Amino acid sequence: MAYTLKRLLVGKAKKTAQAIHERLSKKTGLAVFASDALSSTAYATEEILLVLAVAYAAGQANGFNYVVPITFAITIVLIIVAISYRQTIFAYPSGGGAYIVAKENLGTTAGLVAAAALLVDYVLTVSVSISAGVAAITSAAQGTRWEWLDNHRVFLCLMLIGLIALANLRGVRESGALFAGPTYSFLISFLFMVGYGILYYFLHPGIVAQPSPEHLKLAEGYHIQTLSMFLLLGAFANGCVALTGIEAISNGIPAFKQPESKNAAKTLTWMAALLATMFIGTSVMSYLYHVQPHDNETVISQFARLIFTGRMGWFYYVIQATTALILILAANTSFADFPRLASLLARDRFVPRQFATRGDKLVFSNGIIILAIFAGVLVVAFGGDTSRLIPLYAVGVFLSFTLSQLGMVRHWLKAGRAGEKLKVPSGSNKAGESSRNISETIIRKEAAHWKKSIVVNGLGAIATAIVLTVLVLTKFIHGAWIVVVLIPLLVALFRTIHRHYVDVATQLTTEGFQKLRPIHHEVIVPISGIHRGVLKALEYAKAIAPGHVTALYINLDEEATQKLRTKWSEWGEGVELIVIASPYRSLVGPLVRYVDRRLSLNSDKIITIVLPEFIPGKWWHHLLHNQTSLLLKGALLFKPNVVVTSVPYHLKH
Amino acid sequence: MAYTLKRLLVGKAKKTAQAIHERLSKKTGLAVFASDALSSTAYATEEILLVLAVAYAAGQANGFNYVVPITFAITIVLIIVAISYRQTIFAYPSGGGAYIVAKENLGTTAGLVAAAALLVDYVLTVSVSISAGVAAITSAAQGTRWEWLDNHRVFLCLMLIGLIALANLRGVRESGALFAGPTYSFLISFLFMVGYGILYYFLHPGIVAQPSPEHLKLAEGYHIQTLSMFLLLGAFANGCVALTGIEAISNGIPAFKQPESKNAAKTLTWMAALLATMFIGTSVMSYLYHVQPHDNETVISQFARLIFTGRMGWFYYVIQATTALILILAANTSFADFPRLASLLARDRFVPRQFATRGDKLVFSNGIIILAIFAGVLVVAFGGDTSRLIPLYAVGVFLSFTLSQLGMVRHWLKAGRAGEKLKVPSGSNKAGESSRNISETIIRKEAAHWKKSIVVNGLGAIATAIVLTVLVLTKFIHGAWIVVVLIPLLVALFRTIHRHYVDVATQLTTEGFQKLRPIHHEVIVPISGIHRGVLKALEYAKAIAPGHVTALYINLDEEATQKLRTKWSEWGEGVELIVIASPYRSLVGPLVRYVDRRLSLNSDKIITIVLPEFIPGKWWHHLLHNQTSLLLKGALLFKPNVVVTSVPYHLKH
Repeated sequence: MAYTLKRLLVGKAKKTAQAIHERLSKKTGLAVFASDALSSTAYATEEILLVLAVAYAAGQANGFNYVVPITFAITIVLIIVAISYRQTIFAYPSGGGAYIVAKENLGTTAGLVAAAALLVDYVLTVSVSISAGVAAITSAAQGTRWEWLDNHRVFLCLMLIGLIALANLRGVRESGALFAGPTYSFLISFLFMVGYGILYYFLHPGIVAQPSPEHLKLAEGYHIQTLSMFLLLGAFANGCVALTGIEAISNGIPAFKQPESKNAAKTLTWMAALLATMFIGTSVMSYLYHVQPHDNETVISQFARLIFTGRMGWFYYVIQATTALILILAANTSFADFPRLASLLARDRFVPRQFATRGDKLVFSNGIIILAIFAGVLVVAFGGDTSRLIPLYAVGVFLSFTLSQLGMVRHWLKAGRAGEKLKVPSGSNKAGESSRNISETIIRKEAAHWKKSIVVNGLGAIATAIVLTVLVLTKFIHGAWIVVVLIPLLVALFRTIHRHYVDVATQLTTEGFQKLRPIHHEVIVPISGIHRGVLKALEYAKAIAPGHVTALYINLDEEATQKLRTKWSEWGEGVELIVIASPYRSLVGPLVRYVDRRLSLNSDKIITIVLPEFIPGKWWHHLLHNQTSLLLKGALLFKPNVVVTSVPYHLKH
Repeated sequence: MAYTLKRLLVGKAKKTAQAIHERLSKKTGLAVFASDALSSTAYATEEILLVLAVAYAAGQANGFNYVVPITFAITIVLIIVAISYRQTIFAYPSGGGAYIVAKENLGTTAGLVAAAALLVDYVLTVSVSISAGVAAITSAAQGTRWEWLDNHRVFLCLMLIGLIALANLRGVRESGALFAGPTYSFLISFLFMVGYGILYYFLHPGIVAQPSPEHLKLAEGYHIQTLSMFLLLGAFANGCVALTGIEAISNGIPAFKQPESKNAAKTLTWMAALLATMFIGTSVMSYLYHVQPHDNETVISQFARLIFTGRMGWFYYVIQATTALILILAANTSFADFPRLASLLARDRFVPRQFATRGDKLVFSNGIIILAIFAGVLVVAFGGDTSRLIPLYAVGVFLSFTLSQLGMVRHWLKAGRAGEKLKVPSGSNKAGESSRNISETIIRKEAAHWKKSIVVNGLGAIATAIVLTVLVLTKFIHGAWIVVVLIPLLVALFRTIHRHYVDVATQLTTEGFQKLRPIHHEVIVPISGIHRGVLKALEYAKAIAPGHVTALYINLDEEATQKLRTKWSEWGEGVELIVIASPYRSLVGPLVRYVDRRLSLNSDKIITIVLPEFIPGKWWHHLLHNQTSLLLKGALLFKPNVVVTSVPYHLKH
């Protein structure tokens, strides 16, 4: 029954040989990898405004104006990070995720820190994107008869997470065809909105959003206060969520068509340019139309509602729909990234090995399920509210950025040194010539521009480290402390798990193992009476240890014991019957003590406990029988040199 | 750890030989068996008033006056039932519960119906008594700084149920010492209240309770309506809860000192007299003082508060405390009755046999736990409100009364016929003389008054049948339908369970069983690689089936398979290695199919699957390893002629 349900939910199993590898063009590559990064424009501007609203509420009417310079500052960081990642793409053509780059260049601990940071952030990406997607839907519902949806945001989020998880368990591939539609619809409609919005502003001067002070939404955790450096940094930190997802392309280079690195790098450039345009566009629009963050409606929804009126009214819904869709796609991206990273960690034995197992559909099912559970818990804990989740978000991303860039700096240093060595002529070695030639080519190539490269990645490292510091400082008390505490705990957990696996491998190795001495084997059959199941078990016991079988009966009731003794002479098949008293009516205790006594007689002894067990025809029949054999198995599981075997007697119905 | 927790909660285990049997005098017998019956005076009058309040709310100011005649009508039923039960006590000196009387005289189905009705009512007794006890406490809290307790009634009920269940699991005996205190305190203080109240009325003429119309409480489910026959019957039906528990003595006759039946019958008479006095007293008082049912305070609390003023004020708290205490004792009675009846049913194989097992403390632990769970669920479902539970209550009790009385009618008919036969002289038979003389004495004794007896029990049967009809008719839509539906379902369940047990016994009987043919035994060891655990398993396999062992490897990865083959030549110990392909990466499927193929070769074959399993030192380590062997066991459990054995390899830490 469970099997049927599983097949119904996840579909038919796939053969190992069915794994296909689609190569992506630049256009489809953009669609597949950009949804996470681009979708953050749906909430980044709003998150800046939420902090500025604190100053507005304190009476500073011009507070919101800072949104434009802050957006430009974030864009500068974006450009630096994008250029840095272009270099990573060329240096790690087989995929340079932060875990790999940091581990290879900075050591295992740095790699694990990056991995922990990324895992935390993948979970947050799902929670934040889904919450924002649902906000886009409920915003559109404002003022319609669907307004009540706003009260069920958490439920809607959980539904969507469940659906995405299920789709991924069924094995949705990151196929260009699936992603291209929503991504390009979003891109085109969003860019159109920005263009149309600026035009509309000049055609209808003076049109601004009506402020509704009673619904003014403030950033989570901030007290009402006037503008200060700290507040501006807080707004900047909140806006940095725009950069999340920018690293996606550098993880997926092998998916591009040849030449992979070049295509990936070009796609990254395009993505960064689009992201910057859309982000700046959104912020400028919110400035022009004086939009203020609102409890029940997103900022984008507010100005889209304002400019798309009359005959253009329908386009408002296009904006909301494509926004919701790209946010859902962004969450879906994490459902590919999280299980992939978890499987890399599992292969290196830092997380349970179950994460490296491919399920029926060739996907890493366990990673998908865990991600869905954690994201769901977060959504429930934070009430499905994007702005309450934001303080936790982006810390992990910038930590992994910094470690990855630092790793690249180290990489170029090594390349430089290796280049220096090549200049010193070494003794020629004909045998390894050709393979050495290839690696020499790479080294020479990299060494040629290592100094320039180190400057670029160094700049990236410094910029992201500064942002990381700002993030932690401004968001710490609002929730970032959770991430700051969690990451070292995760790293410690990874290390503990690793130690266990190494330890097990050492204990199980065949190296230095002496051949086993022959076993002294003995069988005990505990019985509760004489029936066909018991007779079958006795027969089996005699087959596996001829001449070394005893039957054991626990005396609970003198009368029943006498009856059994009489019956035994007829049915006992020559097996010795031992009766033990049990004053406390326990079956397990006396048996375990008897086994201990037998074991103490001979150190080479192995005792098999053969349990007669009848298997009822229907599952609920199990409830009608004592589960003594289960208790016995539990009690004997941790006893060395004891094997417990159930001999089933199958009932017909 | 679980063991330590259990010992802490339920205390030290008791030996079977520790079971003691206390004999009760009439005084202590009254204390032990009367709490259930007497405690119902705490709410019976109020339940009548609740229905009459419906007419009062419809404008009939004299509506409440009917409480006195209704109380007298119920008292007449009480007297009839008590006299009938006196006869049962003499006819069934070893304990004549409704289940036994109905089963013996009317057949199994009638017995099961009575049993189902009683089980349902025991659960309700707990819920109703505890709710009423908590109401006595929260009523006393009205107007004090403990008033907030009223908002936590459900929680208080669950706490009390948990405590009583725990006390019973620890093995509280129905000892006279424990019960005498609360029961006699309640009796004395209650009778004093009635006497004092009537005196007070004549000394302070004109004192009445102040009605508070906004807090007037109405019976659950009734619309506001004027007096009608139906309404009066409804009030009568509600008041019949006063009779619940009156059968308790007839179940416990062997607990009395000799002559058991005589002592039990006298105690029953006393109990009925006390019950009638207290019930009539309560109703008369509520009539004299014009007490109306109130949302937050019980009726008894209201007039007790009224009469105990000034220097007698403290006695109000005595009344509330003893009322709460006797109600808790009444619930405790069910914790003895329910498990005892369940164990009788289990011995007759109508409910799972686990209910017949005595736990560590010689109590029927499973019955206690189930009762606590069901009563807790009812309390939560009905918000801990006595009056909402009442429509479900008493139906079961009166159904069991009726069946029990009908059974007695049948019993006297049989006795009469047996008496007739004795008059016909039979051929003398010296051997069986003395034993026949004893049974003849009983038959003659019973036959002497069978006609008178049949009238008494017949009257009882008719009276209780009429009340049962009234109960079902007036309470059906308010909740009694649940019980009406539930009882046949329970009977059907009992029958299904019984059929299963009979069927299993038939299938397992040694009667007609042919000696087994010798077994062809073969062992398969599935391996995932070669390590010490596998080597130990191979050694064991060779010990239990020398020369008939094969190792089985599922090929998931060609490279790993090649490595294994090479290693096998060194470590395989001469065991044949079989490699099977698995295109869907499943381990279980290919193995099961291989086992099926092997089994099909020979019908006498038994295959043992020896699974190498390493047992980690810490429980959480299990999470870090694949649970493949668990899956395998699950898949092979229902396969005949297959035995699955884990050979444990114990890791050190």
